[in-house]
Amino acid sequence: MSELRWDPLKFRWVIIATERGRRPGDFEIPKEEKKLKVCPFCYGQEEKTPKEVFAVRRDGSLPNTPGWKVRVVPNRFPALSSEAELRREGIGLFDRVEGVGAHEVVIETPHHEKSLGDLDPEDIFLVLLAYRERIRALQQDPRIRYILVFKNHRAEAGASLSHSHSQIIATPVMPFIVRQELIAAKEHFSRKERCIFCDIIKNEQLLGHRVVADMDHFFIWAPYASCFPFETWLFPKRHCHDFAKLDDDELFELAKAMKAMLYGMKHVLNDPPYNFVLHTSPVTSKRPGKPGYWGTIEYDFHWHIELIPRLTHIAGFEWGSGFYINPTPPELAAESLKEVVASIF
Amino acid sequence: MSELRWDPLKFRWVIIATERGRRPGDFEIPKEEKKLKVCPFCYGQEEKTPKEVFAVRRDGSLPNTPGWKVRVVPNRFPALSSEAELRREGIGLFDRVEGVGAHEVVIETPHHEKSLGDLDPEDIFLVLLAYRERIRALQQDPRIRYILVFKNHRAEAGASLSHSHSQIIATPVMPFIVRQELIAAKEHFSRKERCIFCDIIKNEQLLGHRVVADMDHFFIWAPYASCFPFETWLFPKRHCHDFAKLDDDELFELAKAMKAMLYGMKHVLNDPPYNFVLHTSPVTSKRPGKPGYWGTIEYDFHWHIELIPRLTHIAGFEWGSGFYINPTPPELAAESLKEVVASIF
Repeated sequence: MSELRWDPLKFRWVIIATERGRRPGDFEIPKEEKKLKVCPFCYGQEEKTPKEVFAVRRDGSLPNTPGWKVRVVPNRFPALSSEAELRREGIGLFDRVEGVGAHEVVIETPHHEKSLGDLDPEDIFLVLLAYRERIRALQQDPRIRYILVFKNHRAEAGASLSHSHSQIIATPVMPFIVRQELIAAKEHFSRKERCIFCDIIKNEQLLGHRVVADMDHFFIWAPYASCFPFETWLFPKRHCHDFAKLDDDELFELAKAMKAMLYGMKHVLNDPPYNFVLHTSPVTSKRPGKPGYWGTIEYDFHWHIELIPRLTHIAGFEWGSGFYINPTPPELAAESLKEVVASIF
Repeated sequence: MSELRWDPLKFRWVIIATERGRRPGDFEIPKEEKKLKVCPFCYGQEEKTPKEVFAVRRDGSLPNTPGWKVRVVPNRFPALSSEAELRREGIGLFDRVEGVGAHEVVIETPHHEKSLGDLDPEDIFLVLLAYRERIRALQQDPRIRYILVFKNHRAEAGASLSHSHSQIIATPVMPFIVRQELIAAKEHFSRKERCIFCDIIKNEQLLGHRVVADMDHFFIWAPYASCFPFETWLFPKRHCHDFAKLDDDELFELAKAMKAMLYGMKHVLNDPPYNFVLHTSPVTSKRPGKPGYWGTIEYDFHWHIELIPRLTHIAGFEWGSGFYINPTPPELAAESLKEVVASIF
């Protein structure tokens, strides 16, 4: 079983995979994704993964057989698992939480060679549908405080298998970065009764020079304080805190926007390794006075996606300070990206 | 000129190197350190670096000529520079600070092939002496709020040249991670009138199973909430907030402890890439009511060194959540390290 431990100096939780217990000889630095003889994510290899928890399938096809377009399966080596009993305890100076949660893999396409950005919007829509359905399902578990969807594209960005996939990790505590965003957004709202994300969209539209694409439903921009070269964020224009509340039409519009965002990055940067994360609202309690109650979260938070090409190293300075040094001003990144993105419409 | 920009959602500063302006074609992911025909850090190549700001030299040898054992030179591509005029300004929704500061390289040895851990304690002492002298000098600049010493060992950990070196970056704002530590330590002290770092040493001595080495003057341990496998922290046993206050005897004891720490990691993990950072106290004002005044910082903070071997990836999950997944419990890391470390005494 894993456990979460609290760092009393850094004020953040860490997941310690106590049962994996990797010893000194167990590490090698992977230079590329594992080359397996048979890819467990490929069409026809469904029995090589744990049993699927969601799939988009041809009518009449059975679970864990061919006939799917998108499949979600539990991670074979989960960082967190739903089977443990949730305990939150203090041990002397320190704090721990049982490693309760979920860790799932979204297999985005049956085609081994296609990446997410290669798919048509119709197929990207199905991947987003899988995200939404799994978030909705995991939100029902009262032990869960956050559900993070993320993607590692290529070994340099942390992918261990090359078949295109994203991951979902549900945690019993709120992650540090999301908590920070929520606190900043709450403070802004409580002072001004306006959403900080909506304010940022308006500010950036006015200035214009960091805008990558100003679409009907989505706003793509290079953020003012980008940590990485060509970092790009996607904000929905309709204020909404929770990704799980999107309807199918909105998901399809988002699929088109994601296609544009990934296409722009691929063409401007020659298909780089990348990560993206979906920040949706935490899973909170609606009842004042209950654990997990966070007040006016529907007004405060605004779901969004952050995309980072991995072109620079995270080294000692970044680790030790929390500072990032970005050699490409976001204004320059936006200039390069916006022309290419416009060309696909 | 660089500038620092504030992220109003993540509550952290980012350094944007506006003048470097790296465009899409300028990125390639280095697989190893640059292979230069002539190493600019080598003995006899002193004219290939900017002019030295500090050196330990044979009596009578001239600056920027041979005769040195350790040299400190400005970084040729500095992230921050002392030449700008400090301005702190708000621009609409956002905030910026002129990229004032310093960025220096500590060339740790004249020998191209030796790494820091290969040096004798007598030579490691000279490297630590260079850190102390440069920190003392940079503390005199009233525009500076923090001085971070760090090291990237090997390309996988972010080193761009293989000749053994560390770096010093002085910033006009307090880095996010240090600020968090300082706030945690201040809160602990204000409640209990005890240093949280001193309390942690006592707690860990009592429990014992995360101790790597309990030396006369230094305490080396695998921290309870380690983010990385075999992460190791070194705390001085004598409470002291500021590394610059160490005398030569203490520096020599520290050199022996560093040697032990690096030797243990090298032998247990087969010479891995690594980073370390020195967290000393921020440069604060002593006068209440002045900018940069932080109160009882001498009591609150406790300088220390954090060492992380780079055995795992920083990928989408870590980036998007601030969570780390550590597959090696620190108790297991301490068990492996302590025997090897004990063997060198």
